[in-house]
Amino acid sequence: MFLSFSGITALIANGVYDSAYPLHDVSLLYQAWARYSVLYKYQPIDLIRKYFGEEIGLYFAWLGLYTELLIPASLVGIIVFLYGCATIDNDIPSVEMCDEKNNFTMCPLCDKSCDYWNLSNACSTARASHLFDNPGTVFFSIFMAVWATVFLACWKRRQMRLTYKWDLTVLEEEEVINYCFIIVFLEQADNDKLTWKDRVPGYLGNFVSILFMIGLTFSAVFGVIIYRISVEAAMALSTNENTKSNIRVTVTTTAVIINLLVILILDEIYGAVATWLTEMEVPKTEKIFEERLILKAFLLKFVNSYASIFYVAFFKGRFAGRPGQYVYVFNNFRMEECAPGGCLMELCIQLSIIMLGKQLIQNNLFEIGVPRMKKLYRKLKDKRAEPEELTNSTPTRQAQQWDQDYKLEPYTGLTPEYMEMIIQFGFVTLFVASFPLAPLFALLNNIIEIRLDAKKFVAELRRADAVRAKDIGIWYIILSGMGKFSVIINAFVIAVTSDFIPRLVYQYMYSDDGSMHGFVNHTLSYFNVSEFQQGTNPQSVQFINVKVCRYKDYREPPWSEDAYDYSKEYWAILAARLAFVIIFQNLVMFLSEVVDWLIPGTPKDISVRIKKEKTLLDDVFLKKEDEKLQLIKSFLKPNQRQKPKVANGMATSSWHCFHINCTLLRK
Amino acid sequence: MFLSFSGITALIANGVYDSAYPLHDVSLLYQAWARYSVLYKYQPIDLIRKYFGEEIGLYFAWLGLYTELLIPASLVGIIVFLYGCATIDNDIPSVEMCDEKNNFTMCPLCDKSCDYWNLSNACSTARASHLFDNPGTVFFSIFMAVWATVFLACWKRRQMRLTYKWDLTVLEEEEVINYCFIIVFLEQADNDKLTWKDRVPGYLGNFVSILFMIGLTFSAVFGVIIYRISVEAAMALSTNENTKSNIRVTVTTTAVIINLLVILILDEIYGAVATWLTEMEVPKTEKIFEERLILKAFLLKFVNSYASIFYVAFFKGRFAGRPGQYVYVFNNFRMEECAPGGCLMELCIQLSIIMLGKQLIQNNLFEIGVPRMKKLYRKLKDKRAEPEELTNSTPTRQAQQWDQDYKLEPYTGLTPEYMEMIIQFGFVTLFVASFPLAPLFALLNNIIEIRLDAKKFVAELRRADAVRAKDIGIWYIILSGMGKFSVIINAFVIAVTSDFIPRLVYQYMYSDDGSMHGFVNHTLSYFNVSEFQQGTNPQSVQFINVKVCRYKDYREPPWSEDAYDYSKEYWAILAARLAFVIIFQNLVMFLSEVVDWLIPGTPKDISVRIKKEKTLLDDVFLKKEDEKLQLIKSFLKPNQRQKPKVANGMATSSWHCFHINCTLLRK
Repeated sequence: MFLSFSGITALIANGVYDSAYPLHDVSLLYQAWARYSVLYKYQPIDLIRKYFGEEIGLYFAWLGLYTELLIPASLVGIIVFLYGCATIDNDIPSVEMCDEKNNFTMCPLCDKSCDYWNLSNACSTARASHLFDNPGTVFFSIFMAVWATVFLACWKRRQMRLTYKWDLTVLEEEEVINYCFIIVFLEQADNDKLTWKDRVPGYLGNFVSILFMIGLTFSAVFGVIIYRISVEAAMALSTNENTKSNIRVTVTTTAVIINLLVILILDEIYGAVATWLTEMEVPKTEKIFEERLILKAFLLKFVNSYASIFYVAFFKGRFAGRPGQYVYVFNNFRMEECAPGGCLMELCIQLSIIMLGKQLIQNNLFEIGVPRMKKLYRKLKDKRAEPEELTNSTPTRQAQQWDQDYKLEPYTGLTPEYMEMIIQFGFVTLFVASFPLAPLFALLNNIIEIRLDAKKFVAELRRADAVRAKDIGIWYIILSGMGKFSVIINAFVIAVTSDFIPRLVYQYMYSDDGSMHGFVNHTLSYFNVSEFQQGTNPQSVQFINVKVCRYKDYREPPWSEDAYDYSKEYWAILAARLAFVIIFQNLVMFLSEVVDWLIPGTPKDISVRIKKEKTLLDDVFLKKEDEKLQLIKSFLKPNQRQKPKVANGMATSSWHCFHINCTLLRK
Repeated sequence: MFLSFSGITALIANGVYDSAYPLHDVSLLYQAWARYSVLYKYQPIDLIRKYFGEEIGLYFAWLGLYTELLIPASLVGIIVFLYGCATIDNDIPSVEMCDEKNNFTMCPLCDKSCDYWNLSNACSTARASHLFDNPGTVFFSIFMAVWATVFLACWKRRQMRLTYKWDLTVLEEEEVINYCFIIVFLEQADNDKLTWKDRVPGYLGNFVSILFMIGLTFSAVFGVIIYRISVEAAMALSTNENTKSNIRVTVTTTAVIINLLVILILDEIYGAVATWLTEMEVPKTEKIFEERLILKAFLLKFVNSYASIFYVAFFKGRFAGRPGQYVYVFNNFRMEECAPGGCLMELCIQLSIIMLGKQLIQNNLFEIGVPRMKKLYRKLKDKRAEPEELTNSTPTRQAQQWDQDYKLEPYTGLTPEYMEMIIQFGFVTLFVASFPLAPLFALLNNIIEIRLDAKKFVAELRRADAVRAKDIGIWYIILSGMGKFSVIINAFVIAVTSDFIPRLVYQYMYSDDGSMHGFVNHTLSYFNVSEFQQGTNPQSVQFINVKVCRYKDYREPPWSEDAYDYSKEYWAILAARLAFVIIFQNLVMFLSEVVDWLIPGTPKDISVRIKKEKTLLDDVFLKKEDEKLQLIKSFLKPNQRQKPKVANGMATSSWHCFHINCTLLRK
């Protein structure tokens, strides 16, 4: 096996040179691309490609298409949201919840210190819930699933068009041997190849580390839950009425912010860990290295970003038990429940804060702030160093382009850019059923993001080496996997987290007059307050003479034969929820297949042109063969010399000849 | 637009020639392929391809791979079946059903004339059901879903290998203009193109006709249901005890046979209808014509073959109502129910008879019998015609190969062959949960089928024109669609048709000791016999003093508050069934994705060789360029003449030059 390890890479690695980079020459690109005044224009993709190479060109083309397609998604999202706003007063369940005449005495939300309360207190959350929990969201999540398919199909077309335009259709990527591999290989020069034994520790370490990291994420989420439970319990003990009424808002908000901080910190750590782990694996080529790194980083960051959201969507409030038999963790802390308005509202808050917070902080702080600070720091260091250097250096030399560029941060690849967008794509597709405004926020972010990235690439980073690339590689697979995953997640969000199915079931199975009147009453079960566990019944009772209190669940009433068992309604609604998941998933998958089939991967005009060129190329090849034949003939019979034909051959059955050639070569 | 319509096709169309075909020369192929004594050997695919061309070669390669992969599937199927046989005596529910001490008095199976009956009478069907309704089948249907994915992935590889070997990797298929299109086009010579207006009647007629045909299939299925209901009712009136006891067997068997006959007849009709409809559409090229024809024929034949099976699997017995409130159709015929052993048994009978019957009759009668009869008929006709011809023709001329071949049937394409196999593939995958022996029967059929087809192709049909083909075309899409469809169908068969889920739910939710004891009792609801509708209660009562009878359903008992409503168990089990569908479908889809990802489409050795050849080809091309350059130089400077290098060039950065060429061509 032959390993080439020479050229500028080797010289830099050996410390002969400090760094090597192409020089910037940005005026045109800056004018046409990296200013906020061209926000509304398409990006000059060809110019970008000329300046930075195909790989970066493709990234910006992809980002542009994604942003473009977010426009219709945002519009539909806004319409769905407005529909929710418009119908809020006609929503019978929330009207019923707000009606103080419906005197539902609810069971206390915590042991001892909490009192009974009236359901009408939860009026505002119920009304807010309706904004995100209405039939419009069901439609919207179907729409967004199909949108994701359309996006991928359109990207395939756009990519095909670009690779054709940029003459990459026949590009075969070179194998660039990874630097680490060379080092490890050189150390073990006695062996010809890295054996299985050399690799096992790497793989094993990898596996264990990833499991550990995922465990870390989960424990962070769990820690926040504990925080929430314990603070809630502590605050409930307080006698200050004002504190008490704000408990939920305070706790929820602080908890989400803690979550967000944890996510941001772990995100940075995980990026470093993924690189370290991939280096441990010693993959052979740069391409494999990058793919493995991306997969690992994606896995870790995905779990990190979404773990707390998954918890709120599917687990929160489902292990809380029921009055008289609550589930306790640690020192008799009761497991948390969702607000009376339903978990969807909390999911929406969680989602919006994490999505917006992540975008704002990562974009502004990390992408602009940190490089500026680094620059500033270097400037300060330079200034301090200057007095000594002043004497040594020639003071007359003017700062050249390479001096200016040297001061910039080195370019480190597109992975962070893609990763950020893919995680955002997850917010836009995965939980869109609970937050129809997600595409709008993504759109607003991306319009800025494109120019921010542009500025960064032309003004704050050293110019990147031009790298050829045919496609966006593994990111496409991740995107398409995410699109598929989003279908089942949305199905479950609608079926399990939202109240859509219970409402439908009530309307068609239990309602007396086919309307939603009485739905709230139907969702509340009864509890006989004499059955509270010892010492858990509320101490300060403002409510007098309470015999039964109500709680949100479908269970048998105390006077039933099997009191507090799940009722028939519970099972019927569960069956309906699951049936909805099946129908939704299969419908959306079918629609996606149809859409994918309707949008061909290669645009018609491109495929026609490719075909034509192939024929032309064959003709040229044939002419060459013809010339050669003529030439050979002319050498064989020097007396009957002929001028070889150069321009016009006979080229009739080009394919046949071409094939014979291939067959000859194969031998 | 230029339409070429000349050559032998035009001459035949104009009646100048009667037909044109390549001559047979079969001895070698017959020896190596078309004899039953080579049954156990691989097919000589390369020989077949040489003799018949790529298209037919690919068909037999595909059929060979399919048959090969049916071997493991059959083995696992047999093991699952044997597992069922072995555990039949340990199956508590069927033991309980057979135990005459468990005195379950069942409600009568028909109005008036039927008596109450004891559940132990259904002992044998319960035992038989267990053969196909055990945990093994769940495993087997997961296995078969993955098997289908593996089959498709393997075929992709095999196809790649063959196209490489047969030098088709760069083949671009020619557009052959369809005959009908030319005729229609010539008629409308004033127009340049067939306009939308010319096509609308075709498309519309198509749509309506297909709907009509599908309606026809459904009404045929419905007709058989009516037959079954009415004959059952008529036989029940008979006083002959012997007749009565055999009712179910007689009716079921005759009904399935009628179904089978209807399927066979409609199959032939639908084939003709699909051709007619496609001709009406006037597609432009032969390829589009074939694709549309195949899609239509497949749709019709698929519905035709499986409609009655779908009915038994998912609808039979679900609209029968309950004692005291049966559903009646027409003249007070009660809707049919499944046998007490469960619908799965009937599904299995239906499936096996239709599958075996279709294979035996279509293979033997239609594929061998009909051609022989045609041959015989033609011989007889010839003989009758001979006396007249005898005088005209020269009696001395010996029969040549073309004379012999002329007597054979003309070759009409591969569509019927593929179609037969695809429908069989459906039997093997779609309902495999109810019939684990299906792969075995398919395997046995195919081993014969290959040689039968071989004989047909070499001895009973005129030799086919060699047609080039890169792949099996639209059949691959149909196969893969069928594989996907089979996942959801099998999920539903296990969840809804079989007793797998109710058993699990009973064991983990309702059983006192975690065993299956008492399951049979749990599945039977109570009916108060005093509540029979006027005139429907059994007349001749052998059972004395019956107060309540039992029926198979999950409903509230008569003494409950809401008697005869669906019980809590019903909804719990329904929820469990649907949950199973979701888990099964997503698990299998995930497994399929993993398998598809693990098996790369192009075998490693082939991709390496393709790459190498490409480089070689580029080198050759480059050398030509070099020669040309030398030549031009030599002409430009006639004084410094050089011999052009012919064999060894410099070929370092071949790609670059190659690319410049492409770019030049594009302009």
